[in-house]
Amino acid sequence: MIQFNIEKPKDEVRSYLQEKIDNLTKPKGSLGILEDLAMQIGWIQQTLEPKLSRPCHIVFAGDHGIAAEGVSPSPQEVTYQMIANFWAGGAGVNFLSRQHNFDLKVVDSGVNFDFKAEDPIIDKKIRKSTRNYLYEAAMTKEEMELAIERGAECVQECYDSGCNVIGFGEMGITNTSSSALWMACLTGTPLEQCVGAGCDHSGQVIEHKLKVLKQSLENYGGDYSPEDIMRYFGGYEMVMAVGAMLKAAELKMIILIDGFIMTNCLLAASKLNADVLHYAVFGHQGDEAGHKQILEYLSAKPILHLNFRLGEGTGALCAYPIVDSAVRMINEMNSFKKIQVTKYF
Amino acid sequence: MIQFNIEKPKDEVRSYLQEKIDNLTKPKGSLGILEDLAMQIGWIQQTLEPKLSRPCHIVFAGDHGIAAEGVSPSPQEVTYQMIANFWAGGAGVNFLSRQHNFDLKVVDSGVNFDFKAEDPIIDKKIRKSTRNYLYEAAMTKEEMELAIERGAECVQECYDSGCNVIGFGEMGITNTSSSALWMACLTGTPLEQCVGAGCDHSGQVIEHKLKVLKQSLENYGGDYSPEDIMRYFGGYEMVMAVGAMLKAAELKMIILIDGFIMTNCLLAASKLNADVLHYAVFGHQGDEAGHKQILEYLSAKPILHLNFRLGEGTGALCAYPIVDSAVRMINEMNSFKKIQVTKYF
Repeated sequence: MIQFNIEKPKDEVRSYLQEKIDNLTKPKGSLGILEDLAMQIGWIQQTLEPKLSRPCHIVFAGDHGIAAEGVSPSPQEVTYQMIANFWAGGAGVNFLSRQHNFDLKVVDSGVNFDFKAEDPIIDKKIRKSTRNYLYEAAMTKEEMELAIERGAECVQECYDSGCNVIGFGEMGITNTSSSALWMACLTGTPLEQCVGAGCDHSGQVIEHKLKVLKQSLENYGGDYSPEDIMRYFGGYEMVMAVGAMLKAAELKMIILIDGFIMTNCLLAASKLNADVLHYAVFGHQGDEAGHKQILEYLSAKPILHLNFRLGEGTGALCAYPIVDSAVRMINEMNSFKKIQVTKYF
Repeated sequence: MIQFNIEKPKDEVRSYLQEKIDNLTKPKGSLGILEDLAMQIGWIQQTLEPKLSRPCHIVFAGDHGIAAEGVSPSPQEVTYQMIANFWAGGAGVNFLSRQHNFDLKVVDSGVNFDFKAEDPIIDKKIRKSTRNYLYEAAMTKEEMELAIERGAECVQECYDSGCNVIGFGEMGITNTSSSALWMACLTGTPLEQCVGAGCDHSGQVIEHKLKVLKQSLENYGGDYSPEDIMRYFGGYEMVMAVGAMLKAAELKMIILIDGFIMTNCLLAASKLNADVLHYAVFGHQGDEAGHKQILEYLSAKPILHLNFRLGEGTGALCAYPIVDSAVRMINEMNSFKKIQVTKYF
């Protein structure tokens, strides 16, 4: 499998960053999360004057064989219908990308639909939908490795255009099921605590969903390695996001992490290379059951709690102005030395 | 005292707003707080197409006689020094106002300093510092009424320039003390639970602060009416903010509420006219002890939890992009009717 050369940022700059942040004209620590973010971003970029440039947001879309088992109340056709909505500019991810000046890219990772050549989608399709993991592995080893590579390619293109901060989102009916299985297998959390209602808040489907996922886990005969778990239960859009995150970290980009599904992709990425976590900024803690637990497992402190459960990366996008504020804080605020203010508390 | 004619928005529009929000291309409720905000703002503006226009942020600054008792570890001179920092564009409130395109106005409500005529401050000064409420009322009845009026004047000017969304902040060394006393008297919460460390997180001052405030409360011989509490323990900048909030509600503007001090000003305003609360958007729950409790008292759900304790209205400003997102959501997202997407969950 493709290897990523991810470096942990050097720690020397941290004391200089702390000194700069502590000497801005405010009581020490009084800008809370902005100060933490300024530290992290300065550390990633190894500078006292960090910059955010040409933000990109990639939505990976894919379909899942498990949809045949009725684990979601929404039909699979919604995946490609929503892609058309992304093109039309009318979805949640669109107004947020426009508001925060993100270059939005929609990637076909494995949607169960034949797009036309002229459709404005980035074609990285591995296959039309994964296989049904109740009976067999969702994808082959070769497909998984290809998905990792293609995810990395998408990020390389953003980087080449001057981007150093990137958000990821997904569209794929039933992908909370894959995520729950990844979480259970990769963290050892009981499946019951990983399975949420997805986008269904009526609660009618969750019992059936849990039953199907339990059976899938019982039928699984693999070695429980991260690679095998990803392959067996994954979605193409999720594995592509894993590759994308690893590549972004290799390129020392700031990675904006969205909700339950993207946090699971980061979790999987961290099992392949733990240093990816240094580059992750956690945007949002969503409503999906299990998200809080997985964030705790990763020692993550999400910026926002807005009760979202939409996906598409909307939580990551909403957090961007706060990240931007942190960078502006460290660059634009006066120090006590520069202006005559008595250091106060 | 000046009376404000605040109307509760009419409820008829709410069912139409809910229908519009529920038919946007997302699972019902899946944009959480954005949906709540879109409802509130559409209700305030009585339209299915709300707009935000020319946002303003006013920082009211004033000094406090109680500073002589050493209730803050910071010297009073910081108040006017920070005002010079606001002019220089180097404080927390500055980079946030620039980032979110707010027109920033700094008002001298009662700073203990003689500004020059050419200084870029809005002169609404009532007096150079309030009196020391350990021994006497902080201000006279006439001064309080003048402060209410002048706060209202500031908002009228913003409104006249086309503004319909307004944030408020403050600068005034020791004003967490006044806020704690307002909170204790206006909500019946024991003083111990209202007194926090202010900007001092060393904890050394808090014991002395509590002792001084307890004694101030024992020496108070008034009638505990909201007007008398505001007058006796207030700061000019706080009373001005009360007048400003009442005027903003009268003008049907969206009011962005900041941290502990501004929440206390809203509390006081609500005791004069409870309908002001319909127009309030709670930006941030800060670190100051008591803030969580006062928010619960007001049944408020703050948008952000960023561990700020700076003041200046920084928490309100940081919440603005989320408010903006809510308005963009209801205006820019496609409905299920408009684009061919199966209603999903």
